[in-house]
Amino acid sequence: MERQTRTEKVTEAIRGRIAGRSLQPGDRLPSIRRFAQTMKVSPATVVEAYDRLAAEGVIRSRPGSGFFVCGPAAPFTISDLEPELDRAIDPFWVSRQSLDADTQMPKPGCGWLPADWMPNTVIRKALRGLARADDAVLSDYGGTRGALNLRRFLSRQFADEGLRAGPDQILLTGSGTQAIDLICRFLLRPGDRVVVDDPCYFNFQALLKAHQVEIIGVPYTPQGPDADGFAKALNEHRPRLYITNCALHNPTGATISPQTAYQVLTAAAEHNVTIVEDDIFAAFEPEPSPRLASLEGLDRVIRIGSFSKTLSASIRCGYIAARQDWIEALIDLQVATNFGGPSPFAAELVYSALSSSGYRKHMEALHRRLAGARSEVSMNLKRFGIAPWFVPRGGFYLWCRLPSGLDSACVARAALEEKLVLAPGNVFSPSQSNGAFMRFNVSQMGEPRVFDIIARAFLACA
Amino acid sequence: MERQTRTEKVTEAIRGRIAGRSLQPGDRLPSIRRFAQTMKVSPATVVEAYDRLAAEGVIRSRPGSGFFVCGPAAPFTISDLEPELDRAIDPFWVSRQSLDADTQMPKPGCGWLPADWMPNTVIRKALRGLARADDAVLSDYGGTRGALNLRRFLSRQFADEGLRAGPDQILLTGSGTQAIDLICRFLLRPGDRVVVDDPCYFNFQALLKAHQVEIIGVPYTPQGPDADGFAKALNEHRPRLYITNCALHNPTGATISPQTAYQVLTAAAEHNVTIVEDDIFAAFEPEPSPRLASLEGLDRVIRIGSFSKTLSASIRCGYIAARQDWIEALIDLQVATNFGGPSPFAAELVYSALSSSGYRKHMEALHRRLAGARSEVSMNLKRFGIAPWFVPRGGFYLWCRLPSGLDSACVARAALEEKLVLAPGNVFSPSQSNGAFMRFNVSQMGEPRVFDIIARAFLACA
Repeated sequence: MERQTRTEKVTEAIRGRIAGRSLQPGDRLPSIRRFAQTMKVSPATVVEAYDRLAAEGVIRSRPGSGFFVCGPAAPFTISDLEPELDRAIDPFWVSRQSLDADTQMPKPGCGWLPADWMPNTVIRKALRGLARADDAVLSDYGGTRGALNLRRFLSRQFADEGLRAGPDQILLTGSGTQAIDLICRFLLRPGDRVVVDDPCYFNFQALLKAHQVEIIGVPYTPQGPDADGFAKALNEHRPRLYITNCALHNPTGATISPQTAYQVLTAAAEHNVTIVEDDIFAAFEPEPSPRLASLEGLDRVIRIGSFSKTLSASIRCGYIAARQDWIEALIDLQVATNFGGPSPFAAELVYSALSSSGYRKHMEALHRRLAGARSEVSMNLKRFGIAPWFVPRGGFYLWCRLPSGLDSACVARAALEEKLVLAPGNVFSPSQSNGAFMRFNVSQMGEPRVFDIIARAFLACA
Repeated sequence: MERQTRTEKVTEAIRGRIAGRSLQPGDRLPSIRRFAQTMKVSPATVVEAYDRLAAEGVIRSRPGSGFFVCGPAAPFTISDLEPELDRAIDPFWVSRQSLDADTQMPKPGCGWLPADWMPNTVIRKALRGLARADDAVLSDYGGTRGALNLRRFLSRQFADEGLRAGPDQILLTGSGTQAIDLICRFLLRPGDRVVVDDPCYFNFQALLKAHQVEIIGVPYTPQGPDADGFAKALNEHRPRLYITNCALHNPTGATISPQTAYQVLTAAAEHNVTIVEDDIFAAFEPEPSPRLASLEGLDRVIRIGSFSKTLSASIRCGYIAARQDWIEALIDLQVATNFGGPSPFAAELVYSALSSSGYRKHMEALHRRLAGARSEVSMNLKRFGIAPWFVPRGGFYLWCRLPSGLDSACVARAALEEKLVLAPGNVFSPSQSNGAFMRFNVSQMGEPRVFDIIARAFLACA
C-alpha cells in the first residue's frame, strides 16, 4: 500500500511538470537515478512510475536513451456525458438516455435494477476464484459453443421445466440481444415480416429495423398476445418470425396463459412461423409459468436468455437453445461476426456465480424486496391517479396509464430536463397507440425526489 | 478449505445416491438435520451442499417442503469435442478446427499464442483488483461508448503515433471482429463490393459473405497491396470498402510501405472508398510502421483493433476509432444489436492490465521470445525445403510456400487426422490461388511432434 502511494507521488510529480509546461512534448525525463534522489524514493519506485506513465501514453521509452514526453492527446469533450434533449423519442432514445444517464440519478425508465440491488458479493467471490483459474480460461478464445459447464448448467435447468435440450443444443452468445440478432441474421432477409407484441420491448423494434424487416404488432392482453389478432396477423402477413417474452412480458409484466400459449403454437405451426421466446425475466417469477419451448420442444421455438437482469449486465453473456442443425449454422455465423465463441471469462464467472449458494439466497431476498417495492410504488402512483394496467406477479415493471390527457412523451421530456429518465409508452408500441402509457421500474423509485420530478413533469404537460 | 471439502463430501454422497438410483427423480431428499447426523457434519454444511446441488439443477427446493430430485437432463453428446474431418476446407474450417481443437495439442494453424505465453499474472492481478471495484462496474450495463478510462488510454496511444482521435471518436465493441461487423452493417448493402488483400485473414471473407457482398481480392506484395492492382480494382469494381491489416499483415507478416500507403490513400480518395485498418497485430511491431489512419486522419480511414492477441482473447473487447458522426451511428447500431455498450467488466480489466508495468515488461520479453521462435521454426522448416515468402519483423506468422507439388489442403487434412490443426493457403485466398502456401504460427511449434506430424502429412500428400 505504501509502495503504491510512493509510486503515485512520482507519477503525480511528473504529471504536474507536464501540466505546468516545465516538461514539454519531446522533452527527456530526468534519469531514474537522479529523479529517485530528487523524490527521496528508491529507483525501483521511479521505474514503476515511469512504466505506468508510459503505459498510459503520457511518456514513451526509447530503448537506450530514456523516457520522453509524448505529444498532447486530442482534446476530451464531454458530449457523451450530457443527455441529448432534442433527440426524437424513438426506441433508441430510451436506450441511450438510460445507458448514458448520470449514474447518481435513479432511472425509473431503465430496464435493470440499481447496482446495489445486484449480487455483488457473489460476483466478487467469483472474481477471486477466477483469478486462480487455468491460463487457458484467462487467455484463450475458447470453444465455438461456449463453456461446457455453463451449457450443462442450462441444460439441467431446462430439464427441470420439462424442456429437453442437451448442451450441444445450446450456444452461448455475447448477450441476450446478440442471441436474437444472430437468429435474425440466420432466418430473416430484408423485407421479411416479423410479429411482435404491441407493446413490446423497445429494442426488438430497433433490432428489427437494423435487419430492414417489416414489423407487425399484435395487441397484447393480460393473458398474452390477443389470440385472434395473432392468427389474423399470421394469415394476412405471412411473417417469418414472432418474438416475445412469455414470462413477465416487457413492458407489461403479464405472463402468457396456458390457453393462449396453445393457440399461439397452433397458429404458428399452421403458418410455419418460428418463435423466439426471450426468457430474460424468467428468474423473477415466483413460480414458473408455462413456456412455449417446454410445450412444443425446440422444433419451431427458439429459447434465448441472458443473466443481465439478475446477475450482472456488465458481464456480457447470453444463450440460444434451438434445433441442433440451427445451432450449427448459428455457430458459423457467430464465428464470422464475432470471431471465436462467447467469452470464456464471462461464461466462467456466470457459471460460478449461478452455481453458488449465495446467488440462490440473493434471489430469495430479491423476490421479497421487489414485492415490497411493487406495492409501495403502486401506492405512490395511486396518489397521482395512476393504476397499473396489470398487477405483475414478479419483476420490476409497472405498465401504467397516465391520468387522462397526459402525453407520456411530453412527461418524459420534461423529466429529462431534471435528468430523470422515464420510459414513455410509444417507444414500446409499433402502432404508436400507447402514448398515454408509461413503464415504471419500481426498483428505481425509492427516492422521494423521483415522485417530485414526476409531479412537476405532469404539471408541465397538463 | 476444510469446510469446502466437507460440503463436497455431502454433495458427492447425494450425487452417488442419485446415480445409484436409491434417490430417483421426484424423491424427497433426507432432511437437513437428519442428513447432517448421517454424514457427521454440521447442518450448515448440508444446507451449503443442497444449495449447490439446487443451483446446479440436480435437486430443487420447494419452499416449506424440502428438497427434491430433479428429472434427468437431456443426454450429453460429445460431438462438439471431435474434429469434423469431412467438412469442406473453407474459411470456417480453420476457425472451427482451431477453436474447438483438443487443448492439449499445439495448433500451428491458429491465430493466437499458447495460453502460457500470455500475461496471465497481469490478468490475475487485474481480476483481484476488479473484485474490489464499485458495484456499478460489476453490475451495470455501462455507457454506450464503453468505459471512458480505456477510451482515454487509446486516445493517448493514438496521439503518440500522430493520430488525433478524442475519446468521443472511440467506440468500444465486443471484439475486433464485431467492430468490423458493425462497420459493415453501417456502410454496406447486399451486393456491394469490398476489396481485401489476396491472401487476407480468412475471417474477413466469412464476415463479408455473411453480409452478402462481393469480395474483390488484390494481390498482396511484401510492400502491401499491389498498388496498380489496387487502383485497377477500384476503377473497375467501384467498391465501397477496403479492409486490411497494415502492420504485420495476416497471413504474410508483411507491412505496408510508406509509398504504397500513399498510393492506396490517393486511389481511395479518388474513388471515394472507405478503408478499415485492422490494427490487431500492431503491438507485435518492434518499431511502429506507417499507418493509413495516421497519414490520412480519420476522414475515410476507420481504425479498429482489439486486445486479443497480446492480452487475452477470453476477455472480449475491441474498438473503433472513426469520424464523430459515424461513431454516433455505430453506437445506435451496437445498442440495437447487442443492447448496452461493450462490457464494462471487460473494459476495466483491459484498462487495468494494459496500464500496468507488468504488461510492458511482458511485451518486451514476448518480442524477444517471438524473435527466437521465428528463427528456430524457420530453421526447422528449411530442413523440409520450406522458406518463408517474407521474413516478418515481428509477430508469430510465417507464410510459406510448400515444397513443389504439395497441396496444402491435403497436408492440412492429413495432419488433422493426427489432431494437428494447420492453416492451408487457400482459406486465406479469395482467388483460391494460394494452394501451395501454408501459414505457420511459430509460437505453436515448439514441440518436435509437430514437425513429425507435418513430415508424415507431407509424405501422405506427395
